[in-house]
Order: sequence, then C-alpha cells, then structure tokens
Amino acid sequence: MKKVGIIGGTGYTGSELSRLLCVHPDIELAAMTSRQNAGRKVSDASPFLKGYLDISFTEKISDAEGLDLVFVATPHGVAMKEVPALRDAGIKVVDLSGDYRLRDPKQYEKWYGHEHADLDNLSKSVYGLPELFRSKLKGAVVVANPGCYATSAILAVSPLMKSGLVDAHVIVDGKSGTSGAGMAPSQRLHHPVCGESVIPYSVGSHRHTPEIEMAVDMFAGSSSEVVFVPQLVPIVRGILSSCYMRLNKDASSEDVSAIYEKQYGAERFVHYVKEPSIRAVVGSNHAHVGSETVGGTVVAFGVLDNLVKGASGQAVQCMNLMLGLEEAAGLDAPGLGV
Amino acid sequence: MKKVGIIGGTGYTGSELSRLLCVHPDIELAAMTSRQNAGRKVSDASPFLKGYLDISFTEKISDAEGLDLVFVATPHGVAMKEVPALRDAGIKVVDLSGDYRLRDPKQYEKWYGHEHADLDNLSKSVYGLPELFRSKLKGAVVVANPGCYATSAILAVSPLMKSGLVDAHVIVDGKSGTSGAGMAPSQRLHHPVCGESVIPYSVGSHRHTPEIEMAVDMFAGSSSEVVFVPQLVPIVRGILSSCYMRLNKDASSEDVSAIYEKQYGAERFVHYVKEPSIRAVVGSNHAHVGSETVGGTVVAFGVLDNLVKGASGQAVQCMNLMLGLEEAAGLDAPGLGV
Amino acid sequence: MKKVGIIGGTGYTGSELSRLLCVHPDIELAAMTSRQNAGRKVSDASPFLKGYLDISFTEKISDAEGLDLVFVATPHGVAMKEVPALRDAGIKVVDLSGDYRLRDPKQYEKWYGHEHADLDNLSKSVYGLPELFRSKLKGAVVVANPGCYATSAILAVSPLMKSGLVDAHVIVDGKSGTSGAGMAPSQRLHHPVCGESVIPYSVGSHRHTPEIEMAVDMFAGSSSEVVFVPQLVPIVRGILSSCYMRLNKDASSEDVSAIYEKQYGAERFVHYVKEPSIRAVVGSNHAHVGSETVGGTVVAFGVLDNLVKGASGQAVQCMNLMLGLEEAAGLDAPGLGV
Amino acid sequence: MKKVGIIGGTGYTGSELSRLLCVHPDIELAAMTSRQNAGRKVSDASPFLKGYLDISFTEKISDAEGLDLVFVATPHGVAMKEVPALRDAGIKVVDLSGDYRLRDPKQYEKWYGHEHADLDNLSKSVYGLPELFRSKLKGAVVVANPGCYATSAILAVSPLMKSGLVDAHVIVDGKSGTSGAGMAPSQRLHHPVCGESVIPYSVGSHRHTPEIEMAVDMFAGSSSEVVFVPQLVPIVRGILSSCYMRLNKDASSEDVSAIYEKQYGAERFVHYVKEPSIRAVVGSNHAHVGSETVGGTVVAFGVLDNLVKGASGQAVQCMNLMLGLEEAAGLDAPGLGV
Repeated sequence: MKKVGIIGGTGYTGSELSRLLCVHPDIELAAMTSRQNAGRKVSDASPFLKGYLDISFTEKISDAEGLDLVFVATPHGVAMKEVPALRDAGIKVVDLSGDYRLRDPKQYEKWYGHEHADLDNLSKSVYGLPELFRSKLKGAVVVANPGCYATSAILAVSPLMKSGLVDAHVIVDGKSGTSGAGMAPSQRLHHPVCGESVIPYSVGSHRHTPEIEMAVDMFAGSSSEVVFVPQLVPIVRGILSSCYMRLNKDASSEDVSAIYEKQYGAERFVHYVKEPSIRAVVGSNHAHVGSETVGGTVVAFGVLDNLVKGASGQAVQCMNLMLGLEEAAGLDAPGLGV
Repeated sequence: MKKVGIIGGTGYTGSELSRLLCVHPDIELAAMTSRQNAGRKVSDASPFLKGYLDISFTEKISDAEGLDLVFVATPHGVAMKEVPALRDAGIKVVDLSGDYRLRDPKQYEKWYGHEHADLDNLSKSVYGLPELFRSKLKGAVVVANPGCYATSAILAVSPLMKSGLVDAHVIVDGKSGTSGAGMAPSQRLHHPVCGESVIPYSVGSHRHTPEIEMAVDMFAGSSSEVVFVPQLVPIVRGILSSCYMRLNKDASSEDVSAIYEKQYGAERFVHYVKEPSIRAVVGSNHAHVGSETVGGTVVAFGVLDNLVKGASGQAVQCMNLMLGLEEAAGLDAPGLGV
Repeated sequence: MKKVGIIGGTGYTGSELSRLLCVHPDIELAAMTSRQNAGRKVSDASPFLKGYLDISFTEKISDAEGLDLVFVATPHGVAMKEVPALRDAGIKVVDLSGDYRLRDPKQYEKWYGHEHADLDNLSKSVYGLPELFRSKLKGAVVVANPGCYATSAILAVSPLMKSGLVDAHVIVDGKSGTSGAGMAPSQRLHHPVCGESVIPYSVGSHRHTPEIEMAVDMFAGSSSEVVFVPQLVPIVRGILSSCYMRLNKDASSEDVSAIYEKQYGAERFVHYVKEPSIRAVVGSNHAHVGSETVGGTVVAFGVLDNLVKGASGQAVQCMNLMLGLEEAAGLDAPGLGV
Repeated sequence: MKKVGIIGGTGYTGSELSRLLCVHPDIELAAMTSRQNAGRKVSDASPFLKGYLDISFTEKISDAEGLDLVFVATPHGVAMKEVPALRDAGIKVVDLSGDYRLRDPKQYEKWYGHEHADLDNLSKSVYGLPELFRSKLKGAVVVANPGCYATSAILAVSPLMKSGLVDAHVIVDGKSGTSGAGMAPSQRLHHPVCGESVIPYSVGSHRHTPEIEMAVDMFAGSSSEVVFVPQLVPIVRGILSSCYMRLNKDASSEDVSAIYEKQYGAERFVHYVKEPSIRAVVGSNHAHVGSETVGGTVVAFGVLDNLVKGASGQAVQCMNLMLGLEEAAGLDAPGLGV
C-alpha cells in the first residue's frame, strides 16, 4: 500500500483524482490540502465521496505523513513553488498544472507570462504520456501531466509524425466539454451563454499549443507549426480534437491505418477505431484515435474524457508507473458507452 | 409613434426588451440606462442588435426625452426607488422586477426582506397578465410585470380555480431553462454543474410563490395554499410548470377541457392544446396550457418562453394595452417550432 | 466464480449489464443472446467493451453452459416466455422487464394489455429493491427488477408511508434522462425535438404507476392512489422524481428527516442528503433521497442513474444477494461527481 | 401581394418556410403539399402555426392557383422531377434540395449517385447566395438554395479567395446542430447517442463538399481542394464552420480584416465581427463571419442558424430578389441573443 496526497483538492482535477484514488487497490489517499476548505471533511465538500473517503482537508501537506507521492492540482505558477520542498522531502510528484510541461524555460516564460522558478526540477521532469514515454516515466520523480487538449492531439498526431509520411504542420481543431475549464463560474461557462452554442476561444494563443508543438517536434524530428483552435461545446465531459496533416508521400488510407494500429495495437487505454466516440470513453481512462484520408490530407481524431485520460486518470496512470504498480491499476474499467 | 425607455438595459430581460422593441412598428426605443455601460453603444454590448438600435446607454433617464413609458428591468428593491420620479414626470411604468407584484406590503416585506418604499404606487399598480386582467391594464399607469414561473402557473391554474371545480390547494412543480436566472454567473448556472442535471432550488421559499397564491386566492375566492418547487433544467429558454389540483366535484376530462377552451379560445397568445410544447412557443410571446385528469387529480401544464411571455414579451403586451396600441403589436409571430 | 448470462444483450440495459459484469470480481459473463447480432462479437457491437469481454452473441442460452443466473433484458411480454425454461434448468433469474413486477395478474393484464403466461413464477418472484426487501432477495430464485422511475419514487416515498405520517396519496412528478427510453430512435427522442425541451408523456398511464402503487400500499398498509407524471428532460442519464405527500399529523421538518436517516443511515447505496444531485450519482449504483417540508406538504426527491441503480446496477445488486456474494461487489465506486 | 406555394411542407425546411412566410408582409402562402398529410390542416401538423396559417395540405400544387413562385423542399432527386412542370406553367422556383446546386451534371452524378433529369433548368439555375450573386438572382427563374454548411463555409472563405491572399486549398471543420439532419429519427440523432457527444460523419464524402469547391473555384479562379469534415454537436439550431486557409503572401491580421469588412460592411444579414456567436444569430437570417490569423494560417469562422440563413430564410431572401420585393422583407429582425 502506497500513501499519496493531493495539493489543491477542491478543483475539478483534484476532486476527480480523489474519485479514482479512493477505490484504487494499492493506494491510500492520506492527505488533501485546500486553503478555503481546511478543516472541513472532504466528503462534505464533495458529497459523492461519502463512504469512500474519510479524511479532512488540511492547510498543508506535512512531512510526517510519509507520503510516497503527491499530486499537485493547483493553478499554473503555484505548482513550481510547491514542488521543491516536496522533492527535498524525497516525495515524488505528479504536477497537473502547466508548470513542468514545457522543457524550455523561455517557452514557459513566453506562454505563461512569468519566469520559471524551479529550473532544477523542470530539467528532470518527464512529460506524462505513458503511451509515448513509458520507459522514462518508470524512473521519473517529477512528472508533468499533459493538458487535456494536448493529450488528445498528441495521441492522434504523433504516430504519423514519427512515420515521416506527413509534414510537420498540424491544424488542431479542438472541441471540449465545459468541465475542462474548471470549477470557477464565468460568462463563457454560464449555461445561457454556452448551453446552446459552440464557442471558439484563445484562438492561436491557448497554452496547450506549445505542448503539442513540443511533441510534434520530437516525433517529426524537425521544427513544427501547430495551429490550435479550441472550441467549447455544450457537453460536460469529453474532447474531440480533429487534427489535419498533409501527406508528403503517396500513402493509402490503409497505410495510414497500419501505422496507428502498430502504435496502439497493444495498448490498454488507447485504441485505434473506425468510429471514435466520446460516449464510449466517457468516465474512463480510455482514449480513441481514428483517421480518415481525404485527398492528400489526413484528418486524425483524438477522443477522451478530459477529466480522466485528459487529466486525473492519466495522472494516476503515471503514478502507477512511478511507484512500480501495475500501469492499469485502479483505472481498468470500460467507459460508460451510453 | 410612442417613445419608451428602459432602466437596466444590460440584463437578460432588458436585452430581450430591446430585441422586441427595436422592430416594434409603433415604438421608438429612445433611451436605455446602464450603470456599468453608460456611454457605450448598446449594439456594442449586445452585438445581435447591430443595425437595429443606434443609441448608447446613459446613466439616467432624462425628463427631457419626452418618454411615454419606461420599463424598469432592475433587481428587486431598486425599482421602487426609481418609479416615484418617473410617475411624477407623468411617465407610465412597467416594472419587470418583483417590487409591485404583491399588493400587500406585509407580504412584500416577508418575502423580499425589506420594507416597501413606494406604497402609493404599489396601491395603484396592476398585475400585468393581460389574459386575466386586460380591462384594468388598459387604464393602468404602473404595471407589475409577472414572474416567469408565476405566469406559467397562473395561466394553467386560474381557469379551474374560477370554476370552483378544484380545491384552493395547488402543487406547482416548475422546470425552468437557465436564462430565467439572469446573466450573472454562479455555481448553479455553471455548465459543468447544471448542463447534465435537474436541480431543485428555493423549495418552498421562491418569491414567485406568493404571486401564484395571490392569483389563486383571487380566482378561488378563498385563502389558498401553493406549494411551489422550482427546478433548473438544462435548456436555455423555456418553462414547463406541472400544476396539480384536486377535483372537489365529479368532473370528466371533457368538463375540464371545456373550461380551458372557454377561457382561452379567443386569445391571441394563450392556447389550450393537447400536447403543450416548449419548442412550439420558444422565441415568441405564445403560451401553451394543457391538462390531463388522473383519478381525482388534474395536472395542468403551463408552458412558455421565460424571456418572452414570461418576461419581456408580456411587458410589451402590457405596454401596448397601456398606450392604446394593438395588443399584439410587435409580438405577433409564431414560435420557432423546432 | 459464478457464471451468468444475459438474454437480450444489445439494448441499453443489456449493454449496461455487460459493462458492470465484465469487471465484477466474482462473476464470469459467459453468454449473451441477441437475435439480430447472433454470431457477432459483443465488443464489435459495443466497442467500449473491447478488451473487457471476449464472447460473441448467440441465438439462445444453452443448458450446457452451467449458468448460475440469467438476466432477462428483453421487452415486456418476452421475458415471461423465457423464464419457465430457465427455471426448469435450475437457473436463477433477474428479469429487467415489467413481466414479474406486478403481483396481481389482473393488474398485469390491465396495464400491459395481455394475459400473464407464467403465473407460477410470478407467484414466487420477489421485487428487487434490496434496501426494502433485502431478506427476501437472499432466497429468491426469480427477481423482478424494478422500473427506473419506480425505484426513484419508492425510495423517496416508502419511509414516510411506513411511518404513518402521510396520507396514502402521492403525486410523483418524474424527470428522466433520455436513455431511459431505450435504444430505438423515435420522434420524441429525436434530438431536435427533445434536445431543448421538457416533454410530458404517458400522463397517468405509465406502467410504473402500478409498481409505485403496489409499494405504497404495502408500506402504507392501505389502498393508495398514485398520480404519476413522467417528463423527458434533455440529459442522457439520470432521474429526479419529486414526490408530493400530505402530512396527516403534526410533524416538523426534523421529524421527517429523522425517519429517512433511520431508514437509510446504514445503507451503502442510498443516501439521505440535503441537496440530492444527479451528477453525484451518475455512472454509479448510488441513489440520493432528499426532502423538504412546505406547510403541510412534504416533497421528497428520489435521484439516481436510470441505467445503474434504476436498472442494471440494481439487477447486479440483486444478483449478488441471490448468489450469496457481497451485496456491493462489482458496484462499489462513487458517482462521477462532475 | 404575391402568391407562393411549398412542395414538401412537412419537413424541417418546409415548416420553417411556413413560419417565415406566414408573417411576410408581401406574401400569401397559398398552397402546401404533403403526401402523408394531404387533407390535414397545416396548423394541426405544426401546432405552432395555429392562428397564422389557415390552409390544408394538398397532394399536388395546382396550376389554377396562380402562384408566382414555388419552394421545393423535397429530398434530393425529387425536386428535379417537379421543377420542369412548374417552369412550364411559368412559375418561378426556389429549390432547397441539392438538385440544382452543382452546375456540372457529371459532378451531380458523382455525388448524388444518379443522372440529372433536368439539364435544361440546371443550366439556367442560379446559386442562391445573395451576398455573392445578388445581381444574377434578381433575374433568376430557378434558384438552387445553398446547403447550410456550404453557406457558412462559402461566406467565410470566398472574400479571401477573391483577394488572392490564400491558396485554393481549404479545410472546413463544420459543427452543426441536429436540426440540420432533418426530421427523420435515426441512431445518430437519437438523444442518448448525440446528446452528450460530438460526432464526425461523412468525412470527406458529404455532399456539401462540391458546393464549397465550386464556390472556391469561382472566387480563386483556379481549381481548388476542399477537405470538409462535418461534426454533429448537441444543439438544436446553429452551425459554426472553422475554415483553415494558408496565406501565400505576407499579410497582417488587419489586412485580412479589411478584406472582410469591405465585402460585408454594407450587408444587411452578414456581419464581420470579432466574436462570431451562434446565440446572436439563432432564430434569424443573420450570419456572422470572423477571422484570426495564426502564423501563416487564417482561420475564418462562418456562423448561422442552419434552418434560417442556412436554409429557409435564405430561400425567402432569394424569393424577395426574384419577385422584385425588398431583399430583407419578412426577415428583418435580430437573432435571439440569448
């Protein structure tokens, strides 16, 4: 039994982590912090956890608790102030914010608007996409859990980039459910505004852009350009990213499929399917990838539940690898289907 | 051509008023106030009005504008401070807040939590439900525009109350779209919270309760009890209120239908139909009423678009009567249907 | 390890059963029938099961398979033709249709429009609501799994009926997600029709009415009247039933709460809470009950996921009791929360 | 007063036509056909029209009615059999199906799967997008009303194509509300399937592809390639198409904006705006176009109500031009806004 904690337990990703960890067979969720809820029982703030989690929020994680790993589920900029002390105490870290995702501190500064405060751990961090970086994750001590959109796009795009069949230029047209935007009410997330609409936002300026670019660079072996257009759709959970790439060689639809099948055929959570479906994966850590070839263009779809494979489920998958547990432990169930 | 103004033009009911008035054949919408948007063009704040309304928000309505009537679309408690000056200037008023709805100032104090500040105009105000109080509205100078839930319930309930066939005890199970709650973001209206749920709120304490009670008393001729349970459903526009009453005499389903048909058969905007439908009325000033008799209980449905017949459309209908215009002017179009 | 099968595996309740059973620790799902899909792999028809279920649909359940229990997830009228042979082979049965729910064959004929064809097993059948009939279910061989609306209403209503505090007259205003209507496309379930609407249907004639009545009779100890008005709301999963009862004795809100707390305080899956929430239970076998007292009326809310606690999850819970397994086995996880 | 008729009056576009025409100041809607509803009052089949339309469906349009124009709102393949007789009778035609959209009969055969049966009228037909082909429409006798997706894409794409600033290669990522798929229930439109999902379909094979291609060819002056990926989103009305084009010259974001402003600055129904919004245009004949430049890529958004500017509203706009009425007659109202 390993002991873990969560810093920032009241947001949607923190709450989803506790949902998954409270029934994980090898994990004791021993501590959760929350500034505004310190002292309060977790299951009072999140009644759906009643009967599953009998701890209270604390102000801080204490050294004395003997934690093996801590999830940091705070806003960007906060995590990098928390991680050094955790590492000094020998605790492994999975950070769900953007703080450790971009390897280049200048990129971080450009996209997040402030300097990075923990270059040391940044240089050691591993990007937490198990299907692509599994071996590195097994030895990692700081893992940067990928963004939800980024996961959907990178899973869809990287196999073709690796193959050399396509140019290193990708258009990612992302459609996300509203839970991806977090629990703070705002005009854009107000039901009368978004409940019967599709709303583009942060066009060309969304922070998942450099994450996708970093992955494309790596797999394409050259400098890439990613045009990322996120759009809010009126569903609670789920992302479908439609990724457009141009073939630079003659390749049939079957050639393209073969590449994906080879990449994901043996994976537990990522599946190359004919009809990628949000309903098939929602509530689970599964992701669907699909593709169609139209003339010289491939459109590849990446589909997942933004709170599970797009956030907390993937974080648990990373944790399993880091702690030497079975990779699928606590996550091995099908999506809702309907 | 009559000139009108709106105090509080940025909220959903103010914005909906301007949508209806900007194409009204007999009305010039000459002034709109907004504290936070004073000086800004209305069509910049509400881009869907571009080409239809070429005025800017002002801080206050000025006497000099020669307005015939002003709509007050402010929060409860504000209207009763604005109305006396308008009346002193000889301007007629339709108040869309709750300030002039309850005839008894003690009831007002009980439900709104503060004393009423304008007893004079309160005593002169007319409850703005044209299908039930048409003749009074023609001579009215201050009209209290009914609440959205209240309109749906009173239309469904009052014919049977008048008939004496049912007890003066009503259960109103209301289901409302989210635009009824206004434009301010909140947890309950946050899409991830309400987008795939049905949420009861203010059970037994919603301020439309005494409005419905007042109407039931009037038509039943005795003191009534109304149990009102409002529930949020994930649609943007629309209310369906299911109203349960007990028959106190033997009456067939046809007897009940005959009462409704007699009441609404000649109405332009209220229709007694077999299958009341939100989609049939949405976007329009039409309302549907339906009924079914189950044993000794009648369930009567009241259906409308909460922003039109439940708020701004009804306010325009009242205005038409007050200004001697045709009652349906500017409102006479069918609902969206789909 | 017990072996079970499903007759009628392609509908929503059959598919949901396989979702739950494929990860049940004590169960092998060994057989599923489907007339139109016989011979096809289950995970081809329901791709979300890929990796979890490696069987194919068959035309019929064969005796040779040594099944301990079979779920019948066929339309009403079919089940009663399948059950006798299963019982003859010594196989226990959980029927998810309405065929074994009404103890009185005359009631069955009245509400379902044809005679009952299996009076023998009907007389032995137990109504599968574990929180109310647990001890009987442990020895049952034929279980009638309750309807989704009925479960939500009976959980909310029965404690008060037992207490004698309320009259045996209940109004049940039910709001259901669309998956409750099954997988066959129809006008009412067509997204443009129901996607932005609330639609009453089968008012006073829905077949869950006599189920609720039967339970109320049993707990009230007298003949009851249930007025049941089902309404479709645009969510995929979830039911909220608002149940109205009249107090016949002086009782405070606290008195009422105490009754519910006593009834459900020790239950694993049914919780009496202040704010019943569809999102808290969706995807899980949990149900919420809440209540508010308004004057002399109690409104009690019953909330659940119609496909889990309202259908397949409850069926698995019954199976666990019938086979001597732990009651919560395979079901013990929190709802999605968000 | 002009007299018009509708062939195929029961589908969504036929019903929407009647909604618009029944309050059109210069039009008498004198005839509507429907095979399955012949003899029935239109307002019985479409109750939202009660009080607005007092005619009954007929089997056929009769010559004797003296119609000036007929809308054909039948499935593809039917229209081309109806049009010749109408033209022989001297009646002008707006066809809402795809039969007269593709100028090249070989293209028609390729995409629709059968030969074109009315080459004569095909050669005379005008593509009914008033903002781009206004002068031709004034003299037209047969108008091919554009597809909903096609309208949204062509409005967004054509100004840049004309400018020569971009390559004649476009990716159109379309998101459509469900009413675009028509009134026939199907698995994909079944609420439990699509109500909480985003569903790609007909990728690369949707029949609006050659329509968009035809327009791009025309404005680019060269042979184009259009990759069109339609996706269903869970809203009833509304389309947002995100169109990706590559700049082939140095051009700033302002240069791009200037092109759109010049194209649409004087238009009544098409507006170039900073934040294109489905809610702003829904229920109206207005469309929004927006654009953002990301590196060397322009993403242009086309937004409209698929049943109004994407179908029946645009058809009425064409009719106005064909009959010498004011172009905006009967259509000149703002969208719902909320």
